[in-house]
Amino acid sequence: MAKELKGLTKRSENYSQWYNELVVKADLAEQSAVRGCMVIKPYGYAIWEKIQRQLDDMFKATGHVNAYFPLLIPKSFLSREAEHVKGFAKECAVVTHYRLKSSEDGKSVIVDPAAKLEEELIIRPTSETIIWSTYKNWIHSYRDLPILCNQWANVFRWEMRTRLFLRTAEFLWQEGHTAHATREEAETEAVKMLNLYADFAENFMAVPVVKGVKSETERFAGALETYTIEAMMQDGKALQSGTSHFLGQNFAKAFDVQFLDKNNKLDYVWATSWGVSTRLMGALIMTHSDDNGLVLPPKLAPIQVVIIPIYKNEEQLHTIDDKAEAIATNLRKMGLSVKYDNSDNRRPGFKFADYELKGVPVRLVIGARDLENGTIEVLRRDTLEKESVSIEGIEDRVKALLDDIQNNMFVKAKTYRDERTINVDTYDEFKEKIEEGGFLMAHWDGTPETEAKIKEETKATIRCIPLDGDTTPGVDMITGKPSARRVMFARAY
Amino acid sequence: MAKELKGLTKRSENYSQWYNELVVKADLAEQSAVRGCMVIKPYGYAIWEKIQRQLDDMFKATGHVNAYFPLLIPKSFLSREAEHVKGFAKECAVVTHYRLKSSEDGKSVIVDPAAKLEEELIIRPTSETIIWSTYKNWIHSYRDLPILCNQWANVFRWEMRTRLFLRTAEFLWQEGHTAHATREEAETEAVKMLNLYADFAENFMAVPVVKGVKSETERFAGALETYTIEAMMQDGKALQSGTSHFLGQNFAKAFDVQFLDKNNKLDYVWATSWGVSTRLMGALIMTHSDDNGLVLPPKLAPIQVVIIPIYKNEEQLHTIDDKAEAIATNLRKMGLSVKYDNSDNRRPGFKFADYELKGVPVRLVIGARDLENGTIEVLRRDTLEKESVSIEGIEDRVKALLDDIQNNMFVKAKTYRDERTINVDTYDEFKEKIEEGGFLMAHWDGTPETEAKIKEETKATIRCIPLDGDTTPGVDMITGKPSARRVMFARAY
Repeated sequence: MAKELKGLTKRSENYSQWYNELVVKADLAEQSAVRGCMVIKPYGYAIWEKIQRQLDDMFKATGHVNAYFPLLIPKSFLSREAEHVKGFAKECAVVTHYRLKSSEDGKSVIVDPAAKLEEELIIRPTSETIIWSTYKNWIHSYRDLPILCNQWANVFRWEMRTRLFLRTAEFLWQEGHTAHATREEAETEAVKMLNLYADFAENFMAVPVVKGVKSETERFAGALETYTIEAMMQDGKALQSGTSHFLGQNFAKAFDVQFLDKNNKLDYVWATSWGVSTRLMGALIMTHSDDNGLVLPPKLAPIQVVIIPIYKNEEQLHTIDDKAEAIATNLRKMGLSVKYDNSDNRRPGFKFADYELKGVPVRLVIGARDLENGTIEVLRRDTLEKESVSIEGIEDRVKALLDDIQNNMFVKAKTYRDERTINVDTYDEFKEKIEEGGFLMAHWDGTPETEAKIKEETKATIRCIPLDGDTTPGVDMITGKPSARRVMFARAY
Repeated sequence: MAKELKGLTKRSENYSQWYNELVVKADLAEQSAVRGCMVIKPYGYAIWEKIQRQLDDMFKATGHVNAYFPLLIPKSFLSREAEHVKGFAKECAVVTHYRLKSSEDGKSVIVDPAAKLEEELIIRPTSETIIWSTYKNWIHSYRDLPILCNQWANVFRWEMRTRLFLRTAEFLWQEGHTAHATREEAETEAVKMLNLYADFAENFMAVPVVKGVKSETERFAGALETYTIEAMMQDGKALQSGTSHFLGQNFAKAFDVQFLDKNNKLDYVWATSWGVSTRLMGALIMTHSDDNGLVLPPKLAPIQVVIIPIYKNEEQLHTIDDKAEAIATNLRKMGLSVKYDNSDNRRPGFKFADYELKGVPVRLVIGARDLENGTIEVLRRDTLEKESVSIEGIEDRVKALLDDIQNNMFVKAKTYRDERTINVDTYDEFKEKIEEGGFLMAHWDGTPETEAKIKEETKATIRCIPLDGDTTPGVDMITGKPSARRVMFARAY
């Protein structure tokens, strides 16, 4: 097996390199000819489609609808909201011209200087501004509210240091943008979507998350409150996996979106926005995978069950084909996605390693002796445990096994995280423990100054102020000033 | 009803204006703050999602997989394929900078001149170049072939005159890009996708199409052959609704993509590309809709059945609610999408007009007297025929009615088109008939010169050389030179 996986670095040797190699070797994504932009390959995209479909169903079940807003944003829109522009102006792609022409020697094309735009256009880094300029025309009275729109789109942020899925210049995401008549309703919406993201992360991705609010420093540019779900990777670093923002009336004021309330009084509209991106792919990979490759939760695996025959001659293969195809058909009737791989150009050992690399949750192997004995070999990808079981009733057994794998993956990840989530009471201890990774629960005086000092000295940031958990007051580990509760620190992706 | 539809121009008065108004009034799309870019509103997007889902299922059923390639393309890529650059360089959005900064007065943002790109990037007008630069790394031997990738994406072409859905600067589409070991296999693929598009247009959109190949003049920039499906709108103009290109080895040569064939000989890879876009929305609207609004084929309608109660008091409403919700539940169990609209802020007459405007295929109305009599009023949107039927067995009746509407819409559109498809033998007759619209089948000598003359003098273009139909030879209506068969002329969108 080592041969087929040639070159996959072990996590213990170099976690970062292991990740980079795995993304490429498992055919998930690769760098493109355009700096910082990735190609999402078919196998990676198939996982993203599963994520999309499930989230989309959950959005619709909570009353949201999809729409589509322009890719390009007039430059002046960005500066309408004072905080927003600070957050996004520094990393955007700017369209300045709308035509090319042939060079004088006719061998290439050059930008036509005559085709300069009067106002430059920005490729959306996020769509609050273009959407609120649109909502202005949609909203007149409380009867037009709420608006609960989501959009699946590509966005672009000119990142200097990029990594596949985790931080790319272009990425795919969904962005919800809602408009409400009251502050309370908007705040409820922001929390509802946070909970939806947490539900998705835990019950579909099998990734345990901590729900919380960001400190002011880490807040979305233009929000009054940013809610977040934070996951722990196997190197003990945090990965922000989804955010939901309560925007107050900031964007309504920036784009002058007012409505007549029930008392016929004009007021600005209240807003939220919330999003998850292809970054979730990074969370999925880094939470579960091992030195043999991907480990995918059954609910998001493009192939849930693979069946591989082992045979010495055509006659044996024919007999195995019949049995395997019958099992595959039965499993598909149960709604499972099954691949029967009887291709003759790859040896079984190669196939084993390849499907392990690809993270297929359950592998069934049928050999000639199995047929004689009425048995079949079952391997579960999460633990790599293998057993020979009766072929009779294999379908129910596979179904139960998939449920068990989904559950086990979550429990394993949660146990890992909980063991590495510790209370820390002194700054010395903090500086020591942060080197080992993990989530450090510490008291903080609530000031950006202390937060900045800790970040500078330890590279740890406040990931969130958790919504649940220990709320005992204490004193800041550095300044000794009062702290309302412990907050969660970690180094982060 | 006239009141609620206030201002929808009649088709007979001004077809073009009728279309523009309908798209906006039916909440399908609207202009955005960015020139030529549209906002696709939730109701319009819901139809597009139905189109997407169905096409995606059909692509996957024919062995295709989805992937995602970068939005931006290095400028130099465009000029690699000589014909391709001529077709696309003139209408593209050019990214030249990657950062903004505050203006000196601090009141706005300006492009940071220090952040100029070494090589400009183009927002993809189509993705052949970036995809073939990627395929170069994926393809080494015949064992790597075929590659059957599709991508759902936004693309951008700087159009001067735009119309919602029909021609917009940014639009949404899918683009398939396949790579093959032999010419025959690629040609077969191009025709297969043409047939898939025709199948979708006719059996889901209820839009009859003519399948054919484009003349050299109308061919995709970089293709050896462009296949097309052409539909006729209610004003007799043609709408190109989908194209499938046999690209030969042009892009493989431009990006140096070679493979070792079974005989261990190096050869360039054969290619196809094929796409349909949000333009299909325009075809859907213009083929079927009437002066009351949209008429949607049941298979693509976001709401297939609407139920509206008519009541004088709360007690009546409660009784009707029970009955209506039972019917809605039964219909949903049959897989139909049903809306029960018992909202009390709109009168029934307003609701009737609104759902007609939105093109909901079947409307059920229940009043108090209906409940007494055990009847229900059924209206079919395509013919606006109304009848009172027994409430008993209404579910099966609705199901059958939806099938009938789907079928009737296709037959009606096909009859309309066939009546307006005529043979024309002289240029005088051609010039007279083209003013009435319709498809004119005429003999052509096969030269670009004659084609250009006809286009200049009549605004008619060769929509396609049909794959089926009359193949009797004749003589060109202008030059008298031999013609292999009649080709199809029309004015087009």
